[in-house]
Amino acid sequence: MNLQVDENGRLRHFLSIDGLDRDILTNILDTAESFTGVTDQTIKKVPLLRGKTIVNLFFEPSTRTRTTFELAAKRLSADVLNINLNASATSKGETLLDTLRNLEAMHSDMFVVRHADSGAAHFIARHTQPHISIINAGDGRHAHPTQAMLDMFTIRRHKAEFKNLTVAIVGDILHSRVARSQIIALNILGTGEIRVVAPRTLIPAGIDALGVQVHHHLESGIKDADVVIMLRLQNERMQGALLPSEHEYFKLYGLTEDRLAVAKPDAIVMHPGPINRGVEMDSQVADGSRSVILQQVSYGIAVRMAVMSLAMRSQQDAGGTQDAN
Amino acid sequence: MNLQVDENGRLRHFLSIDGLDRDILTNILDTAESFTGVTDQTIKKVPLLRGKTIVNLFFEPSTRTRTTFELAAKRLSADVLNINLNASATSKGETLLDTLRNLEAMHSDMFVVRHADSGAAHFIARHTQPHISIINAGDGRHAHPTQAMLDMFTIRRHKAEFKNLTVAIVGDILHSRVARSQIIALNILGTGEIRVVAPRTLIPAGIDALGVQVHHHLESGIKDADVVIMLRLQNERMQGALLPSEHEYFKLYGLTEDRLAVAKPDAIVMHPGPINRGVEMDSQVADGSRSVILQQVSYGIAVRMAVMSLAMRSQQDAGGTQDAN
Amino acid sequence: MNLQVDENGRLRHFLSIDGLDRDILTNILDTAESFTGVTDQTIKKVPLLRGKTIVNLFFEPSTRTRTTFELAAKRLSADVLNINLNASATSKGETLLDTLRNLEAMHSDMFVVRHADSGAAHFIARHTQPHISIINAGDGRHAHPTQAMLDMFTIRRHKAEFKNLTVAIVGDILHSRVARSQIIALNILGTGEIRVVAPRTLIPAGIDALGVQVHHHLESGIKDADVVIMLRLQNERMQGALLPSEHEYFKLYGLTEDRLAVAKPDAIVMHPGPINRGVEMDSQVADGSRSVILQQVSYGIAVRMAVMSLAMRSQQDAGGTQDAN
Repeated sequence: MNLQVDENGRLRHFLSIDGLDRDILTNILDTAESFTGVTDQTIKKVPLLRGKTIVNLFFEPSTRTRTTFELAAKRLSADVLNINLNASATSKGETLLDTLRNLEAMHSDMFVVRHADSGAAHFIARHTQPHISIINAGDGRHAHPTQAMLDMFTIRRHKAEFKNLTVAIVGDILHSRVARSQIIALNILGTGEIRVVAPRTLIPAGIDALGVQVHHHLESGIKDADVVIMLRLQNERMQGALLPSEHEYFKLYGLTEDRLAVAKPDAIVMHPGPINRGVEMDSQVADGSRSVILQQVSYGIAVRMAVMSLAMRSQQDAGGTQDAN
Repeated sequence: MNLQVDENGRLRHFLSIDGLDRDILTNILDTAESFTGVTDQTIKKVPLLRGKTIVNLFFEPSTRTRTTFELAAKRLSADVLNINLNASATSKGETLLDTLRNLEAMHSDMFVVRHADSGAAHFIARHTQPHISIINAGDGRHAHPTQAMLDMFTIRRHKAEFKNLTVAIVGDILHSRVARSQIIALNILGTGEIRVVAPRTLIPAGIDALGVQVHHHLESGIKDADVVIMLRLQNERMQGALLPSEHEYFKLYGLTEDRLAVAKPDAIVMHPGPINRGVEMDSQVADGSRSVILQQVSYGIAVRMAVMSLAMRSQQDAGGTQDAN
Repeated sequence: MNLQVDENGRLRHFLSIDGLDRDILTNILDTAESFTGVTDQTIKKVPLLRGKTIVNLFFEPSTRTRTTFELAAKRLSADVLNINLNASATSKGETLLDTLRNLEAMHSDMFVVRHADSGAAHFIARHTQPHISIINAGDGRHAHPTQAMLDMFTIRRHKAEFKNLTVAIVGDILHSRVARSQIIALNILGTGEIRVVAPRTLIPAGIDALGVQVHHHLESGIKDADVVIMLRLQNERMQGALLPSEHEYFKLYGLTEDRLAVAKPDAIVMHPGPINRGVEMDSQVADGSRSVILQQVSYGIAVRMAVMSLAMRSQQDAGGTQDAN
């Protein structure tokens, strides 16, 4: 049984890209498309989730991610509660499950979950009552599915068919929840060729099973690529022995206009942000004509609105029968 | 003169259960009853407090309590400002009274006050302009009246008449603002028999004056009880000499299914949360069929909506004359 | 080119009083006048900015200032995001400009900026896309223009014509962004006589160029004044050699009823808050009949509503053409 999909095959939780099929991903992208127009209106709101209670349940702080979900929820007219669980009842010795039970009892409709542990969002979805939808806003190294979907949306907006595309993902593949989610999404959408580009120390074992080509040199990795996705380098990785200095990393894997010349002439450059300028890429690329990095941010709101409204629709239809009693 | 009641005998502040009569408490319970349906609606909101400004004025942090009041206010369509006064102007040397004057001048309508000092909510109500309602969200050891009212609401939902009930309150009676508020409310509502159950060190002197029976053994205390209210054990009490270890406490006062067998067969078990599982009760009881702990949380939103809307109605009617000038 | 004014001569950013003319200031005051009635309504809201996204972008914490802007925005029906940039992505190494780009990409409409560095709000306005309005909520020693405008509003409400007034500003002129903004506003509005009153160490060099009279004695400084504006003494100034003790300061510059006797009989006393009672003035003055300090707070909401709605109107009209494409 797939936790993420209801009996009618529709999205009810959004925990990871794994286990979703092409129809569902395409439906998310199409729904997001319909929300891009909302921000052009004078009143940038739709009343879809009016009176719904969405809880941003953040077990690790992330202003950036919290902001995008809060904004998406408000544009859907939902009420938003921000709960930072470091500063809350769990510190009073309450278990996670008791915290969930309490928020359920308050008739919350959706938890947007951010957690440092892989699998936390799945755990919460398995242990939450059916009337609550769970959206994964990043769990450890495991998944960051709304980020992956906004990346897919950005690609689809700029390129024709996934099946004709070559997409290169460059950087710390090993530790990146974004990369994992992207690869799976690209596969489901039938992407022609997926490459990962990184030093040997930052490639996870068994990555071939995901149907990707592995490159250790930037030039060969992005050659003739239609899409170049640069991952964010986590500073903390620098501390360990896995990576040389930032300077050294830039020399080997940093994207410059010169290097980008080997990609397709109309290649687009993506990055989940925030950019370490001069590490993953130089500013000429980040701010250049082929960068779609800020569009990713824009589309991120529309994609989150889509995921939230789809999951809520599934809950509401399920609840409809219940209301009839 | 009763600070909490306006000239028409209606609630204008909600500071403590003391000083309120059975009509007012019953009116709160009846109003809460009318709000329980709101969460079953597709749009879980009523427009009663639209355009009103409610300030959560928290002098000590409590995510849990803040969340319930914020949610209740939003479901009444009010605008909510969260002000944590540790991180605010008071640290700039502003006095409490100047802070109140400022929030009044901004045309706030209601302060929900949480403070570590007993009597803080009364102090603020005495020193605030008449157009502001004060709701006590917990002041030191003194009172936590919305918690007491949600407990009364839960009892009324499950049992017939208060006058036929035996209610046992088990735990640290001495330090509990919840217990104090509960005992007074139970008395006002005419409860048949009220018992407190605790070791000698955790019973306040002169408790008999409140019309309760004192028990030092759990079994005698909950025998034939209709309602068993377990209090939360504050960890900090363990530090002092007042209590043995958590393990020892559980052995003497912890609720188990076995022990609960001496209560009435249809007894309900309550707890204000968060539960220390294995201290106040084991998980079999907490999650068992007689536990109504999560219903308390649900009803808590409805009760807070009731208290807020009643107090605001009193202010508004008073203000109506003022507007006419 | 004036950054603050659009091609039709209307306010589009509100960064400082400098560079604005009397028409614009008067328009702000008149618009604020129209908003003072909103708080007398049962529903204290107008739908002017419904569906707009206003970001409180605070690079230094200020609960007091954040609260007034949040309240003004909510009374205009806008959606508000509070972002404290100490706890956010900038700590992940993101540059300020990247943070701005991201918030732009999320289709924010307005940034309310608080920053410890002088000129930060101008910097942000210069580097933000045209569809975003910037409101300066205090930048270093430079400006605090909404505070100055609420002071002007308060004066206009109590006195007839600026040209017939004598206004004395007392305190740490050197370090005060409020004083700077006030002096410029008073000049633009044609105030008869502007005096600054402070010890030599707290008067900036070249202040005469601003058209003010310098006084070092309180009595001569406030003699026959119509308006006495007391500045807040920053405690941190005491640490340095610039000032004697608080006690000594009060002896020389603290306002008492006795001293106030030399001002006009109907003089008003102002202070931006929070007051250090017994330092800038004693409580008899602060709470006395000539104090309009709490009215300043009230008017502050109306003035901020005015500035926000005017700036947004300018953006919206500009955007109107864009929408037509």
